[in-house]
Amino acid sequence: MKQEFVVIGLGRFGGSIVKELIEQGADVMAIDIESERVDEFAPIATQAVVADTTDEAVLKSLGIRNFDHVIVAIGDNIQSSILTTLMLKELGVKRITVKAQNDYHEKVLSKIGADNVVHPERDMGIRIANNILSNNVLDYLEISDEHSIMELIVNSKLAGNSLIDLDIRAKYGINIVAIKRGKSIIVSPQADEKLQLNDIMIIIGADVDINRFEKKVFN
Amino acid sequence: MKQEFVVIGLGRFGGSIVKELIEQGADVMAIDIESERVDEFAPIATQAVVADTTDEAVLKSLGIRNFDHVIVAIGDNIQSSILTTLMLKELGVKRITVKAQNDYHEKVLSKIGADNVVHPERDMGIRIANNILSNNVLDYLEISDEHSIMELIVNSKLAGNSLIDLDIRAKYGINIVAIKRGKSIIVSPQADEKLQLNDIMIIIGADVDINRFEKKVFN
Ligand SMILES: Nc1ncnc2c1ncn2[C@@H]1O[C@H](COP(=O)(O)OP(=O)(O)OP(=O)(O)O)[C@@H](O)[C@H]1O
Ligand SMILES: Nc1ncnc2c1ncn2[C@@H]1O[C@H](COP(=O)(O)OP(=O)(O)OP(=O)(O)O)[C@@H](O)[C@H]1O
Ligand SMILES: [Ca+2]
Ligand SMILES: [Ca+2]
Ligand SMILES: [Ca+2]
Ligand SMILES: [Ca+2]
Repeated sequence: MKQEFVVIGLGRFGGSIVKELIEQGADVMAIDIESERVDEFAPIATQAVVADTTDEAVLKSLGIRNFDHVIVAIGDNIQSSILTTLMLKELGVKRITVKAQNDYHEKVLSKIGADNVVHPERDMGIRIANNILSNNVLDYLEISDEHSIMELIVNSKLAGNSLIDLDIRAKYGINIVAIKRGKSIIVSPQADEKLQLNDIMIIIGADVDINRFEKKVFN
Repeated sequence: MKQEFVVIGLGRFGGSIVKELIEQGADVMAIDIESERVDEFAPIATQAVVADTTDEAVLKSLGIRNFDHVIVAIGDNIQSSILTTLMLKELGVKRITVKAQNDYHEKVLSKIGADNVVHPERDMGIRIANNILSNNVLDYLEISDEHSIMELIVNSKLAGNSLIDLDIRAKYGINIVAIKRGKSIIVSPQADEKLQLNDIMIIIGADVDINRFEKKVFN
């Protein structure tokens, strides 16, 4: 059974959600108060509708409570965002995700029953700051406050060594989960695997250990 | 040696970058044209300055070319963003990262020499869409077009089984990189490790295999 979504607000954030959900094969009703924005999504979304979602009668007529999940991506107009969320909740929508502008907005949204509140600009700022701080870290996943998975580029200091030569696990407590070499991925590489220049190592470990390793190898 | 950064534009995106860079121990000069925004960052940033960064003389007087990396987080005013980037480039700044509003903006920024162009709202939309699509996937890292690392919650169908019982590697070609259990992390779990309800499995594999596994286990 296909999952059915509604996205309200077709700015860059909401619009990007519509496109990705559609690409992944979901059904999406895309809603905006501005007809030009809706026109842009008519060829992409399953349905594209011009509507003011602060109007309860409109939401009812769209049968909004039959959808699995509604995403409210209204940005600057905090009042419309809150009012829309309130209406959705009252109509009995099962799952509501809302974009917040600030902490005050988040607090109100949580109080009135939003299941999930997101801060795209803030979260992306944190990600970008971390990417910027290390030229060697290509991407990362924070798996706990103190542990991460990171993509590191193999430099000339590391290249030519096998994993057993480097013995990163014993020296740093870090595990190499996979190696990306061009278009191929070597998952759980063997101990005799030799690193090549510009390979990307995907490692898992405690942040302190990863920092120690980075300092040693990349400075 | 501490890395030294400049962040221009202290909205949610730029502001979040300043905070994270400072938290990670870097030096940051925070700049905005609006004094209220600057006042907010005076207690946080290494330096906080009110300035119009489209003015070359101002940039020079701030000694901007001595910094390692300048991040332009001016949003809606595309013209100011482009003009600022142009000035920074002419003054010989080594590394410039710029937030783009749209594809046209990105094209211009790349042409005039921005080293790195980012689309926070769009990228976060893609991330959120993927998080939403699966209630079981808590977070993920796309390691190639066709491979990912994912955090999956252990449900009642999986709980109580050891990894060897499940034999996920043979059946699906998926590796379990780590298990998160409360506050502890078990890296490279042993074959006889028993999964517990609400454990978080961190797995690596091809997207098609992960999809197959998810469908089998979570439906
Ligand atoms: N009451 C409403 N009903 C439906 N759509 C609305 C309502 N109020 C605002 N919107 C729409 O929400 C969308 C997002 O609003 P926002 O002010 O964040 O625009 P934006 O800055 O272009 O978005 P983004 O930051 O995602 O690029 C706009 O297209 C706007 O027309
Ligand atoms: N010429 C300039 N020089 C310095 N700062 C500027 C200039 N033009 C704009 N800014 C600042 O850039 C910041 C970001 O601009 P934007 O229009 O994106 O605001 P915002 O929507 O609040 O940001 P965000 O989307 O990150 O929350 C604003 O605080 C603005 O004052
Ligand atoms: Ca916005
Ligand atoms: Ca952390
Ligand atoms: Ca903005
Ligand atoms: Ca993909």
